[in-house]
Amino acid sequence: MAEQIDSAPVKGVRDFYPDDMRVRNWLFEHWRAVAKQFGYEEYDACVLESESLYVRKAGDEIVGQLYNFADKGDRKVALRPEMTPSLARMVLAKKNSLAFPLRWFSIPQCFRYERMQKGRKREHFQWNMDCIGLDSVAAEVELMSAQVAFLQNVGFQVSAEKCDIAFKVSNRQVLQDYLATLNITGEDFAAVCVIIDKRDKIGDEACAELLAEKNVDGETAGKILDLLNVRGLDDLARVAGEENAGYQSLKALMELAEASGIAHAIQIDCSVVRGLSYYTGTVWELFDESGSVPRAIAGGGRYDRLMETFGGQSVPMVGFGFGDVVIALLLEERGLIPNSDARVDDYIYPMNESGFVIANKIAAKLRTDGQKVLVDYSCRRFKHVIKAAENAGASRMFTLGDQEIEAGIVKVRTIGAERVENDHPISEFT
Amino acid sequence: MAEQIDSAPVKGVRDFYPDDMRVRNWLFEHWRAVAKQFGYEEYDACVLESESLYVRKAGDEIVGQLYNFADKGDRKVALRPEMTPSLARMVLAKKNSLAFPLRWFSIPQCFRYERMQKGRKREHFQWNMDCIGLDSVAAEVELMSAQVAFLQNVGFQVSAEKCDIAFKVSNRQVLQDYLATLNITGEDFAAVCVIIDKRDKIGDEACAELLAEKNVDGETAGKILDLLNVRGLDDLARVAGEENAGYQSLKALMELAEASGIAHAIQIDCSVVRGLSYYTGTVWELFDESGSVPRAIAGGGRYDRLMETFGGQSVPMVGFGFGDVVIALLLEERGLIPNSDARVDDYIYPMNESGFVIANKIAAKLRTDGQKVLVDYSCRRFKHVIKAAENAGASRMFTLGDQEIEAGIVKVRTIGAERVENDHPISEFT
Repeated sequence: MAEQIDSAPVKGVRDFYPDDMRVRNWLFEHWRAVAKQFGYEEYDACVLESESLYVRKAGDEIVGQLYNFADKGDRKVALRPEMTPSLARMVLAKKNSLAFPLRWFSIPQCFRYERMQKGRKREHFQWNMDCIGLDSVAAEVELMSAQVAFLQNVGFQVSAEKCDIAFKVSNRQVLQDYLATLNITGEDFAAVCVIIDKRDKIGDEACAELLAEKNVDGETAGKILDLLNVRGLDDLARVAGEENAGYQSLKALMELAEASGIAHAIQIDCSVVRGLSYYTGTVWELFDESGSVPRAIAGGGRYDRLMETFGGQSVPMVGFGFGDVVIALLLEERGLIPNSDARVDDYIYPMNESGFVIANKIAAKLRTDGQKVLVDYSCRRFKHVIKAAENAGASRMFTLGDQEIEAGIVKVRTIGAERVENDHPISEFT
Repeated sequence: MAEQIDSAPVKGVRDFYPDDMRVRNWLFEHWRAVAKQFGYEEYDACVLESESLYVRKAGDEIVGQLYNFADKGDRKVALRPEMTPSLARMVLAKKNSLAFPLRWFSIPQCFRYERMQKGRKREHFQWNMDCIGLDSVAAEVELMSAQVAFLQNVGFQVSAEKCDIAFKVSNRQVLQDYLATLNITGEDFAAVCVIIDKRDKIGDEACAELLAEKNVDGETAGKILDLLNVRGLDDLARVAGEENAGYQSLKALMELAEASGIAHAIQIDCSVVRGLSYYTGTVWELFDESGSVPRAIAGGGRYDRLMETFGGQSVPMVGFGFGDVVIALLLEERGLIPNSDARVDDYIYPMNESGFVIANKIAAKLRTDGQKVLVDYSCRRFKHVIKAAENAGASRMFTLGDQEIEAGIVKVRTIGAERVENDHPISEFT
C-alpha cells in the first residue's frame, strides 16, 4: 500500500463536509434572500485575477498578503483578496451599456495569506453588496438596512428595546478636510488612513511614529488621534464644525436611518477608519455588542474615486463586505444555526440484489412524482437500514423482500412518531 | 486621470454579469435539485489544494495543465483541476466517522491551463456526483439516471421515442483482462488507457507509436485498437468472451438501466476510455446526439483504487463530472434557457430628495411584509423611472411627489398589461 498522503486541506483553508455545507448554504441563502428583497442582482468574477488590480501605493496591508504567482503564460495573477477591485473592473468594462445605478451583490471566496487567529482564516466567503452610481447617503442606509434585515432574519435582536449589534460609522471627509488644511491630500491622505486604522493593534505611539514617516509632525498627529476619539454627532459638530462635509453627510445619514428604523443601531464613532485606502466618504464597521468575538462582523464604505484610479471616469460607489467566518462563530455561540437533515422523503430497501430492478422502477416513478428518493443498495441488515433511513430524514421506507416481490407486494412503513407498516401492491408505485 | 487598466478578466476565465449569473444560478439550481432528489448531500473543498494530490505516474494530461505555485509559506499548491482527488482526500481524512455508502455532490470551479476552443475555457464549474462505498453497478445506473433527470428537467428529450443524448459506456476491465494476459498491469495499464484515450485526436498510428514506448508491440497495439471498435453487448461477448468481468458488469448495468427507464439512452462503446488514469471499472461519456458540439457533455467512471494510491484502504467509488460550459452552449442553441428578470415586486419613486424619508419608511414596511422592494433615489424624470421599474419586473410603482407627501398621499400604479393608478394614504404602507 502507498504511503498515506496528508489528508488535511492546505493550511488556512477549509473543507466543507455535508454538515458544514448545510450551514454554509443556509447562511448564503439568507444573504441571497435579503439582497433580492432590496432589489440587488447577483454577479461574480473569477477568483483568479490580475495582480495589477491590487497594486496600490498607500501601503494597504492586503497587498502584502496576496496569493500571487505567474501562470503558464507568464501572466502575473493572484487569488482575489477582496471583491471590490473586480467589481470596479467589471463596471469599467461595460460602463457604456450598464443601466446605472447598479445594485449588485456577490458571495465571493477571498484569499489572504495572514497569521491565523479566532475568526480569521486564509480564505473566507464574503457577502458583498454594492450600490454604484448613486451619490447619496440613501445608498449607505439601504446597505445597512440590508445588513440589519439579515441579522434579524437569522435571529439577532435589532430593535430600539434590545440591540445585539452596533454599526460604528464615520466619514473620511471629516479627517480629509482637516488634513487638507495641512496640505496632506490624495495618496498621502490614503496612507494616513491605512496607518491610523492600525491604531487599536499598535497603539498611539507607534501610530505617531508611522505618521512621522509621512511627514505628519507630532502636534498634528496628536490632533488626528484626538479627532479619532470623537463620539456622536453633537461632539463631531463641536470638534469639526457644522460646515464640515463629513459631519453634514453623517447627519443626513442618521435622518434616513431613522426613517428606515435602524438609527438605534448606529453609533457615530470617528475611530472607524477602515484599512483600505480607496474609501473616500462614509465608512462603517458592524460589531456584536456582546463582544465575545473582538473582530468586526462586517465593514463597508464609500469609494467614489476607485474608478478614477483605474483610469475610468469617476463613479460614486458604496458597498460592504460581510465575511462568513465571524458571523458563523456568533451564530454558533447563540445557538441560532438550525440543525435539520431532512434530505430524503422516501427510502427504498431491496433486501437482496434480486430486488434492485423493482427498487429502481419504484424509485424512477416516485422521483417523477417529485419525491426525494434514496435507494439503499447495501443489502445490510434491517436494523442498520432503518437507522440510515431515519438519519436521512425519510418519512417512508419501502422494503422489498424476495417473497414479497414474488407476490407483487412492497411493505411501506411510515417513519416518525408513529410507525405504521402496510403491504401495498408494487404496481401502485411503478 | 490614471491610465486605464485592462478591464478584461484573466485570459481564459469568465466574468458573470447579472444576466450571466442568472443563467448560472438557474443551471446550478437544477443540478442541486436533481442531486437532492437522489438523496445526495452537498460538500465542498477549497479551490486551493496541495499540488501533490495531482501527481500521477501515468502521464495524465491534467498534471501538465496545473495552475500551480508556492504560497508564502513555500507550500506547493495548485488550483484544483478536478474535484475527485479532493473528494478522496476528504473521505480519507474522516474514513472512520463517515457512514458509508456516501452519496455526495458538489459544484466546484476547476482550472486547467490549456488551449482554448469552443466549449473549453481555462476554468469551468463542474457538477460532481459520487457514490462512495457501494460495489455495485446500481451506483452507476443511479448516477446516469440523475444525469437524465437533469437533462429532462431542462427540456431535453430522453425517451425511447426520441432521445437527444446518448451515454457511451465501456468498462476498463474489458481491456485490463486482455492486457493482463500480456503482463501489462497496474501503472502500465493506466498509462495505456491515457494513451488510447487520445486516439480520436492523434489517430491510430501515433497511438501505436506511444504504445510502443510502453513496450506494447505492434500486433498487440492492433488488437487493442480492434477492441476499441467493439459496439454493443453482443459484439462484446463475442470478442471478449462472456466470462470477461467487464462484459458481465456491463450486462448487469444494462439490466438495471432498463428498470430505471434509461436503457434506450445507453450505447455500449468500447472506444470510451476516459483520460484519467485512476478509473478501474465502468467508464462513460455523455454526448449530444445532434452533435453540434463535438465534445462530451459529461463523463464519469468507477475508480475503486484511488483511495489505495492515497495510502488508504480500498473503497469502491464511482462518480461523474458535468461541466457548465458545454451544456450552456447546447441549452443556448436549443433555446432552453429561460429569460426572465422579475427581480422586484415594488418600485418606490421619491421625486425629490425630500421624499427619501417617507420612501424609506414605506420600503421598510413592505420588506417586512416579504416584498422585494427597490427605492429609486436617482430623482430622474418619470419616463426613465417607469422604464427602470418595468425592466426590474416590478408589479407596482409608488410615486411620492412633494405635494402628495404634504397631503399624506402616495400614488400607486400597477405595472403590466393594465396600468391603473390610485391615490392611497401613506399611512396604509408605514
